[in-house]
Amino acid sequence: MYIDAMASYVPQEVVPNAYFEQVAGLTNDWIVERTGIRERRKAGEGENTNTMGVKAVETGLDLISFSPDKIDLIVGATYTPHDTIVTLAHAIQHRLDIHDVPSFSVSSACSSLVNAVEIVEGYFAMNKATHAVVVVSDHNTAYSNDEDPKSGPLWGDGAAALFITKEKHHDRAIRITDVLTGGAATRGKATQAITLRPLAGFDMPFGKDVFIHACQYMPSATNDLLKRNGKTVEDIRFLIPHQANLRITKNVMETLKLPEEKALGNIQIRGNTGCAGCGIVLDENKDRYQPGDLIVITVFGGGYSYGAMLLEV
Amino acid sequence: MYIDAMASYVPQEVVPNAYFEQVAGLTNDWIVERTGIRERRKAGEGENTNTMGVKAVETGLDLISFSPDKIDLIVGATYTPHDTIVTLAHAIQHRLDIHDVPSFSVSSACSSLVNAVEIVEGYFAMNKATHAVVVVSDHNTAYSNDEDPKSGPLWGDGAAALFITKEKHHDRAIRITDVLTGGAATRGKATQAITLRPLAGFDMPFGKDVFIHACQYMPSATNDLLKRNGKTVEDIRFLIPHQANLRITKNVMETLKLPEEKALGNIQIRGNTGCAGCGIVLDENKDRYQPGDLIVITVFGGGYSYGAMLLEV
Repeated sequence: MYIDAMASYVPQEVVPNAYFEQVAGLTNDWIVERTGIRERRKAGEGENTNTMGVKAVETGLDLISFSPDKIDLIVGATYTPHDTIVTLAHAIQHRLDIHDVPSFSVSSACSSLVNAVEIVEGYFAMNKATHAVVVVSDHNTAYSNDEDPKSGPLWGDGAAALFITKEKHHDRAIRITDVLTGGAATRGKATQAITLRPLAGFDMPFGKDVFIHACQYMPSATNDLLKRNGKTVEDIRFLIPHQANLRITKNVMETLKLPEEKALGNIQIRGNTGCAGCGIVLDENKDRYQPGDLIVITVFGGGYSYGAMLLEV
Repeated sequence: MYIDAMASYVPQEVVPNAYFEQVAGLTNDWIVERTGIRERRKAGEGENTNTMGVKAVETGLDLISFSPDKIDLIVGATYTPHDTIVTLAHAIQHRLDIHDVPSFSVSSACSSLVNAVEIVEGYFAMNKATHAVVVVSDHNTAYSNDEDPKSGPLWGDGAAALFITKEKHHDRAIRITDVLTGGAATRGKATQAITLRPLAGFDMPFGKDVFIHACQYMPSATNDLLKRNGKTVEDIRFLIPHQANLRITKNVMETLKLPEEKALGNIQIRGNTGCAGCGIVLDENKDRYQPGDLIVITVFGGGYSYGAMLLEV
């Protein structure tokens, strides 16, 4: 399957670290040293998970090589829902005005992008779809507490859309060669480390446990994926790890023995945009990809799910 | 694919219609006439979407014909999440203590059961799984407002688990012959009629629009499913429509020209248990199924998704 086109959206409002000095007593240096984050985007009045996803899709509609009415599967992914009934996927379907195609939203927290793509792979395998759109969108600031010094400054908002086709329609389409997903809810403090109970908001009592497992699972998923495709880390042109913390990215690159310049990321200016993060990074860097480039996206989410996917330009 | 075993769970606490006379000024007769509901179950202190799902799975573990460690895919379904990061699927994975298998949760509101089963079908088609568990669980009372006369009395809580295998392992396994899903978020007041914005609770400003579309889509999905499988409505032994309102069930049976005794339901004593409803009904009636029986489950959800699946005992 192939990424025919992609697009992303981040809100206008920039929230600099200085804001968290005011509300949480955290200095810019402290935040940058621990997370790499200098600023993040925040959804404005009237914006939410669904509207951001729609914006990403609208941008993408100008880029796809096929008629939008060929879209026959819509998969949303978010853990910060605006509406759990009129889900992200339903909002996208409404905007696209495409009748009668399967539309649903998924969550495995920050790892949802790769789950959503694997679900599309399944629909393609069943011959139940040929043109899908995967929309990842997280509105973290709807649920986060800016005054929480542990996690307040981490969060940003944004969305991305990947238009995925079973067949290759043009030369610049990016092949999705393989997708690997797994759950690790059996490990460490998976069910307690970070939670988002909609009625209570985010809680991250064991951030270090998340950090440790993210640093373990993203390299291992990457290695497993490469191995089963007869590739090695040396073949990777770009690695896009989940954008949770710049220290995690550095740790993952070290473990994989990859030079830091092969890591693509945006945590510094976007914060942790949840499951949208890797999608936004993939889109923001698309002018850099050259034919033959191998790109690996690897993700890890609270609740401890992980995944990796292999892209070939 | 086959339902190897199934199980369900409803909470202990019974809430009779009399309660809504106190809090919302609605009489028993008024509620029964409009909805068919006499009583519903309410999750107790400490219970939630995840704990109810775990209870259903635990009951099912005693019934499956294979070793639980063969489970290689866990799909949760809910629109009333306890936690959007440690999702229903993650809680199930943690309980099952099965490492490294894909685990994620989905929502297309009340129609999620059929989407979840179709996703499993996709994993089976890719040869990425052979033994899946689908867990549907809704904790409506966590988000509902008992004092809302429009929707307060509708909601109940509960969960069901379907253990689905690619191959048939025993004579009593129920074949899932076909699954059909679609979205209708383009129709009527799909994006406004009923919403659950976690930060605001349920809102149902256009209940009649939901009613009309549910009465239209469940029969049409059933007919489309039957047709593409070379069956007719006369072949149906039992129809299990989404349990939202007894008047919807009656309307669906009339449209399909099926006698009411072929409808299986539990709305009278369970209320609308969301996407868990049809799963609970399927489980609660399992002693009635005879070899050769054809069962159709058909669903419709807010946000306007629909689906149907054909079971052969």
